[in-house]
Amino acid sequence: MSFHWLTAPCAQPDLAILGEAADRQEQLTKPPGSLGMLEALAVDLASLQHTPTPALDKVWISVFVADHGVAAEGVSAFPQVVTGEMVRNFASGGAAISVLSRNLGATLDVVNLGTVNDPGEIPGVRRQIIAPSTANFCEQPAMTEQQLDSALMIGAESVRTAKAAGAQLFIGGEMGIANTTAAAALASALLQEPPSCLAGAGTGLDSAGVLHKVSVIERALAQHAGAQGALEQLRCLGGFEIAALAGAFVMAAQVGMPVLVDGFITTTAALVAVHLQPQVQPWLLFAHRSKEHGHARLLRALQADPVLDLGLRLGEASGAAAAVPLLRLACALHNGMATFAQAGVSTA
Amino acid sequence: MSFHWLTAPCAQPDLAILGEAADRQEQLTKPPGSLGMLEALAVDLASLQHTPTPALDKVWISVFVADHGVAAEGVSAFPQVVTGEMVRNFASGGAAISVLSRNLGATLDVVNLGTVNDPGEIPGVRRQIIAPSTANFCEQPAMTEQQLDSALMIGAESVRTAKAAGAQLFIGGEMGIANTTAAAALASALLQEPPSCLAGAGTGLDSAGVLHKVSVIERALAQHAGAQGALEQLRCLGGFEIAALAGAFVMAAQVGMPVLVDGFITTTAALVAVHLQPQVQPWLLFAHRSKEHGHARLLRALQADPVLDLGLRLGEASGAAAAVPLLRLACALHNGMATFAQAGVSTA
Repeated sequence: MSFHWLTAPCAQPDLAILGEAADRQEQLTKPPGSLGMLEALAVDLASLQHTPTPALDKVWISVFVADHGVAAEGVSAFPQVVTGEMVRNFASGGAAISVLSRNLGATLDVVNLGTVNDPGEIPGVRRQIIAPSTANFCEQPAMTEQQLDSALMIGAESVRTAKAAGAQLFIGGEMGIANTTAAAALASALLQEPPSCLAGAGTGLDSAGVLHKVSVIERALAQHAGAQGALEQLRCLGGFEIAALAGAFVMAAQVGMPVLVDGFITTTAALVAVHLQPQVQPWLLFAHRSKEHGHARLLRALQADPVLDLGLRLGEASGAAAAVPLLRLACALHNGMATFAQAGVSTA
Repeated sequence: MSFHWLTAPCAQPDLAILGEAADRQEQLTKPPGSLGMLEALAVDLASLQHTPTPALDKVWISVFVADHGVAAEGVSAFPQVVTGEMVRNFASGGAAISVLSRNLGATLDVVNLGTVNDPGEIPGVRRQIIAPSTANFCEQPAMTEQQLDSALMIGAESVRTAKAAGAQLFIGGEMGIANTTAAAALASALLQEPPSCLAGAGTGLDSAGVLHKVSVIERALAQHAGAQGALEQLRCLGGFEIAALAGAFVMAAQVGMPVLVDGFITTTAALVAVHLQPQVQPWLLFAHRSKEHGHARLLRALQADPVLDLGLRLGEASGAAAAVPLLRLACALHNGMATFAQAGVSTA
């Protein structure tokens, strides 16, 4: 068991191509800057993909599913049995991310890391069971070192598979009853902020439910006050899917694959990844501002300016998937528009 | 010449389908409300299209091009010759809206209403010349009654053509050097607000340029202080393409075709349309919040909550086109997701 790979160097964006792409945007037949974020996204993708003609024909979406011991504290509006039920729904095509992946022509990779309600072998689901759930982190660390190692490696392996398949963008998603509690606890520890700043309604708690959730997180933080560093905080307060996402994001930066980050839980994983290896940061594009309380705080911590703000709070990578068409259009505009010279259009 | 058609009754959204669609969203396998604006868009489209399975396979984009007499006052960062040059660029596929339409599989209908630099007959451009430009509205009304009538009718005719072609969504766009000045003047008159609240940088004025633009609009408003009502204000302060858009939006509501409104200039036209016929309002969906100063004020006036906020300020319908994939995904999710009962997933 070794965590050394997490701090290995990352790939570097191509700054020469960044400059050329920015210059090209100034030459296209529009007032300079008038395509706003669509210009910035195309320039960033050119730099990250090391090509003057960025493209997102091949998008890879890995959704990591796992259960959480802290669900026993009554922190979710939905029963824990739903996690396993949703694995079937992902595979049979009825979940939001199933519909979105199909519509985008993206590869959907569903990874079951362990659910209390075990759906068993299902076609279209990779079975990488670590345990039926994490431990209840109000009482003990959520994961053993071995479990943490496994989760990180499974996430990293998804990225290697995506890279080998020619994916041009990696999206990570998650599903797991009680995982906004784990993410909020972990984010509180990482940012050293009170849980009330990071805990929200999740799948639909009322205000009393949120207060209870905050008190559960306060107990967990007291229990693990000695946990030092992002890796140990992840082990004590995270979840299998959060660790898999963090491992995936570190590996994506190491192999030079741009990442489109989804909502509250994946952004917590991104924060872990950046704490583990700061060179991960430039590889992260942010898809949306979730409605989950606390996401805005995480985005600020990562200096992120997300593409969408649609009041989403579903997870599953759904917000990232929703942003893919805009990134594709940004690439199409960058690659396909005429320059002033080509079109014979006068400049200002 | 008759403007009576503008106040004819509009089609009505189907409120029964609205309720059924909202009920369906509560049954889909996600926490209720967790798809945010994507839920609302699907429900609205179901109601407007009078179908439980809304769809946007056929999207129609009409871009109306026209020159403005007020360009003589030096209110634009670009020379007037660009308007005619851009007509060629739209047709040859190099403009932003050309690239976007191609990528969306949308029909692009380019309508030349009159440019000082006349590109002549061009394949792919409908030539509906009203005059080489409007008059300089600092000195006289921008349009004659006959010209206003023509512009409104040309816009309406585009919608009738779109409807006959089976379009499920109408998008109007515009291009015309100095048309943010016309739109800001018209919006000032309609909202009875000072020009400084509505005039912005357009294609890229500096702050001195914006101040000059405001003073030009103040002169125009003084000149036409006697213009009463939206139709006369449109005639005195608008432009051919703004009138065409207003006519198109009224007709869209009358034939029951949902409209996706673009940026500052098209939103001004939408405001005119709603002033002319308040029943237009429910047929308008708003694509984005433009970076152009004044757009936020217009959106407030129309109680609009746009889908995107990407810092766009190009026009041409580009912001509306960029939002189309999100509306399509909203429909796909609404139609394609499994219900809790279908998927055997437990509820909260």
